[in-house]
Order: sequence, then structure tokens, then C-alpha cells
Amino acid sequence: MNSTLAKLADNHLSVAIALPKVLHLVNHGAKVYSFKRYEYIPLRSDALWQIKTGIVRSLTWDEEGNQIILGLWSTGDIIGSLMSTLDPYQMQCLNDVEVEVLPSILWEQASSAIISHCHQTQHLLSISHCRTIEIKLKKFLIWLSEKFGKPCDRGILIDLKLTHQDIAETIGSTRVTMTRALNQLRIEGVISWKNHYLTLHSSFNN
Amino acid sequence: MNSTLAKLADNHLSVAIALPKVLHLVNHGAKVYSFKRYEYIPLRSDALWQIKTGIVRSLTWDEEGNQIILGLWSTGDIIGSLMSTLDPYQMQCLNDVEVEVLPSILWEQASSAIISHCHQTQHLLSISHCRTIEIKLKKFLIWLSEKFGKPCDRGILIDLKLTHQDIAETIGSTRVTMTRALNQLRIEGVISWKNHYLTLHSSFNN
Repeated sequence: MNSTLAKLADNHLSVAIALPKVLHLVNHGAKVYSFKRYEYIPLRSDALWQIKTGIVRSLTWDEEGNQIILGLWSTGDIIGSLMSTLDPYQMQCLNDVEVEVLPSILWEQASSAIISHCHQTQHLLSISHCRTIEIKLKKFLIWLSEKFGKPCDRGILIDLKLTHQDIAETIGSTRVTMTRALNQLRIEGVISWKNHYLTLHSSFNN
Repeated sequence: MNSTLAKLADNHLSVAIALPKVLHLVNHGAKVYSFKRYEYIPLRSDALWQIKTGIVRSLTWDEEGNQIILGLWSTGDIIGSLMSTLDPYQMQCLNDVEVEVLPSILWEQASSAIISHCHQTQHLLSISHCRTIEIKLKKFLIWLSEKFGKPCDRGILIDLKLTHQDIAETIGSTRVTMTRALNQLRIEGVISWKNHYLTLHSSFNN
């Protein structure tokens, strides 16, 4: 996380760690918390929240500090920092909100893989909001290398057969634009292609 | 679904309904199925699939028949038509794939709300891939009206306080562009604003 993002995250975390007010216990012993408009719901790694009333939006920020809204959530929806791998990530109340803590016994099994499905979709959504095609492409290649990458002599081999068209469709661009952008990265010496397999060189992140 | 999409969906459904081959039963009695590169995994409304080996992509199509890739999934990931509300929706194998049917006892409780969190993110991702800002905005307003809409005299009132900036951030545009696009819809008489509350008139979908 660069310094701009760290600062943004700090600002919001300082809001998020304020102790929420327990409203009451519901039938099965779960706690209900209340939040006001514009408050942030705490980022607890051990909890999912279920919205009882109100509207919450989940959001992240790009490198320039622009907000990227990832979703709008209301009664019955489940939210929580566990639903995202993005950093920074926050949940902001759009009006008065009540949320119930969802006990982990209800979501520990198959739910973890379902949540990781969500993570990926959110990640792609976040990439699709980047302002330039170059940033979209770079972030997508980094994500691919994290999910499908294998270390090799030159850097990281993405172990997935890919065409320029595949990449264009995934990040919402055209094949022609992708070919131009990928050729540029190849000329800069930070990637190479062989038989539809892509390698990100060690210099890629510099 | 318009005729182009219906045709696309038909084409792919005809692939999807082919009877998959049961490979073997794993320890707890779940069935494992195998698919070849480019085959489509059946859209079963009663099942989630967990990937054992291989890579699968989930996708939809826009009105012009352009593919929109919603995710790339590999070993351990959970996929299934239950993970999306988009129509058409397909899961295509990118290489030889084995998937296991995940019994519903593992995902029927909290998972349904978690899956609906996924649905929404996928929907926003699909909107973010639309080619023009006018289509993005129209699709987003329809989605808002389905999630937050209340019937009123003129059509559907979106029961959520919204600024032009809020909409811009959610669909990946700028406030200036949103103001222009929303004013255009207002001039056409298909929407109206009052105190940050938006109404889609009955003529909106025509």
C-alpha cells in the first residue's frame, strides 16, 4: 500500500475502531450494533455483519484517492471486511444502520470459498474502475500472477493460456488496445510472451 | 432478455445441457464431473460446484453480443449459476476441468446472503463493462429501482438519498458527466429528482 493509500486507510480506520454501541441482544444471543449516517462499520476479521435496517456502501480508493464504490447493501445483506481482499476497504453507513454480528458457525465451511469468489469479483470490479487502460492492465497482470503465477528464471510465469482477446474481455477493453498496450510492456522489457503464456519479469513492479 | 441474448444463451445452453461424465465418487459421496477445454459447465439451480483441477471462467454478454468476463476460477473455488443473477450467464472451461458437486447442506444457511453479496458485485462489474456512459447509467438506475424501488404515482421512487457524485463513483464516471447524462434523462421526461430522491417514470424502459 503506498503512502497516499496508507494515509486514507489510517483516516478511515481511526473512525472504524471507535467502539460501537450494542443496541440489544437478539433471540439467539447475537449482538446488534447501531451506526449513524456516514459512520464506518468496524473492520473485524472475526466477524461478518448482517444488516437489520439501513443502507451501507462498501468502498475502496484508487492511487489518486478517488473513491471506488464496490456495492450498496441493505436489509438482509451480509457485509464485512472478510468479503473483500482489497486494501483499503471500508463500509460506510448511508443512513442510520443496525447490524447484527453473524456467528462464525454459520459461515465457516463452504462459505469461505464462496467469500473468495466474492473477493475475486470485487477485485475485478475495482480494476475496471481504474482511470487508464495502462493501470487496468498492470493491476490485472499482477492479480493474474498472484492467482496463477509460478516462479521462473526471469520472474513469474502465469500458468494460464491467454490471448490478447481474453485479457481485453476480462478488463473491459478491445483486442486492438490490448495488443498495443502489451507490446509496449514487451518493448519496455517487463513482460514476455511465449505460446500464449505470459511471464512478468522481475522488473515488472519497478 | 432480447432476441440477440436469447440466441446467444440458447447456443450456450445447448452445450451446457449435455450430460456430464461422472468421474468417481469422492470420500463423502459427492460426484466428480470432468469437462474438456471450451466446454460449458451445466447451469444447475440446485448445485454449487467446487473446482478440483483446471481453470473455469464465468461470463455474460452485452446487448451487442460482446463477452464480459466476470471471473477466472481455479482449484478450490466455488462456482455455479447460483453465484450470479445475470442472464445470460455461463461457466466455460479453459482447460481440462474436474468439478465436484457441493451438497446444499454446506451452503444453505448464511451462504445464501453471501451469494447475494456476490450477485450484486457481479452485477456492478457487468455494468462497469458497458461501452457507453448512457447504457451504464440506464442499467444502474434499473438495478437501483429493483433493489431500492417503491411504486409511486409516476413510476418507481428509489428510496435512497443519492447525489450525482454517488452515482458517478458507483459506475466509474465523473460528477460532471453524470450531471450531463442525468439532465438529459430529465429533459426526456423519463426521470425526475426531488431532494436527492430519484423517480424513474413509467416511460423509463421504453
